[in-house]
Amino acid sequence: MRILVIGGSGTIGHAVVTELSQRHEVVTAGRTHGDFKVDIMDNQSIDTMYKQAGKLDAVISTTGNVHFGLLSEMTEKEYSVGLKSKLMGQVNLVLLGLKYINDHASFTLTSGILNRDPILYGSSAAMINGALDGFVKSAALEMPRNIRINIVSPTILAESMDQYADYFRGFNPVQASKVALAYSKSVEGKQTGQVYNVE
Amino acid sequence: MRILVIGGSGTIGHAVVTELSQRHEVVTAGRTHGDFKVDIMDNQSIDTMYKQAGKLDAVISTTGNVHFGLLSEMTEKEYSVGLKSKLMGQVNLVLLGLKYINDHASFTLTSGILNRDPILYGSSAAMINGALDGFVKSAALEMPRNIRINIVSPTILAESMDQYADYFRGFNPVQASKVALAYSKSVEGKQTGQVYNVE
Repeated sequence: MRILVIGGSGTIGHAVVTELSQRHEVVTAGRTHGDFKVDIMDNQSIDTMYKQAGKLDAVISTTGNVHFGLLSEMTEKEYSVGLKSKLMGQVNLVLLGLKYINDHASFTLTSGILNRDPILYGSSAAMINGALDGFVKSAALEMPRNIRINIVSPTILAESMDQYADYFRGFNPVQASKVALAYSKSVEGKQTGQVYNVE
Repeated sequence: MRILVIGGSGTIGHAVVTELSQRHEVVTAGRTHGDFKVDIMDNQSIDTMYKQAGKLDAVISTTGNVHFGLLSEMTEKEYSVGLKSKLMGQVNLVLLGLKYINDHASFTLTSGILNRDPILYGSSAAMINGALDGFVKSAALEMPRNIRINIVSPTILAESMDQYADYFRGFNPVQASKVALAYSKSVEGKQTGQVYNVE
């Protein structure tokens, strides 16, 4: 397969590339790193990336930002970061990618644990993860040409605990290499409409 | 208690008013009907409504629009309807209402079944419902002054089957009066951070 990983230089993205490049041709895209440059908040940029990337059997997104902060200090403006980036950025990768990717290809997006196991400062992350999980479950019903769509929802990464342990006390961190297996299952298996919780 | 129901003239809203006005003082708000006029997509309008409504022990929202349509015919524009109205409209009712409502008061929002039981044309509804459920579960951790927040996620209403039965074949419709009980539990009980699935 020929696989595009958007966000391939992040911790999860790098582990996904490592896992899948053992068996497939993997190309990467990102805002600053990768084979192709892309800003997922800009539909023109997404379209250009797909034109450059050529034929694809799988599109994986491990990218997107959300604002973390106290709800009492947040307004619509802070919530819009996640709505535009992690949510609609990833949704637009699907909507625009549909006209480029091969029959029987797959999309795999990334959400996260915080909508089912919330933490302080995480109300925007919980909102965006829930939105993505819901979108993918429903979008799977309408994919044309036997195209599939799944989403991976990981807990906190072991690799991120140095930085974020105080916010995730009591969570059981997982290695990015284990999270990468869920992307492998999505791309190399046949399931669709699945939310893969990795925790 | 003094309770504000936003969307009080809709099918669910009307049932909620009927249920709660037996025991409480209920005032209503809506775009065209109700004691107070409000456009939930306009923060200034929300603020004015709260100023007019006075002291409140509970705020219930049974309002908000989403676009239903084929994913292949939808762009960011169609998804933005639900993001601005049903999602951020309800979220802004919480963010702005926090400075007006009483200690120990509650917010109760409305999502719906389509993120856990998807249908054709429902990818935006699934996204918005998932976002709302996630937000409420997380926001409950950060409510000040013992304020609570829950959300009701009903299946298709028996009262709506005349119009929508073809889209919901196999679903078990519920009467609005049964859905109203979940709002009663949220307002008159002590739970917080709950998603009440009514189906």
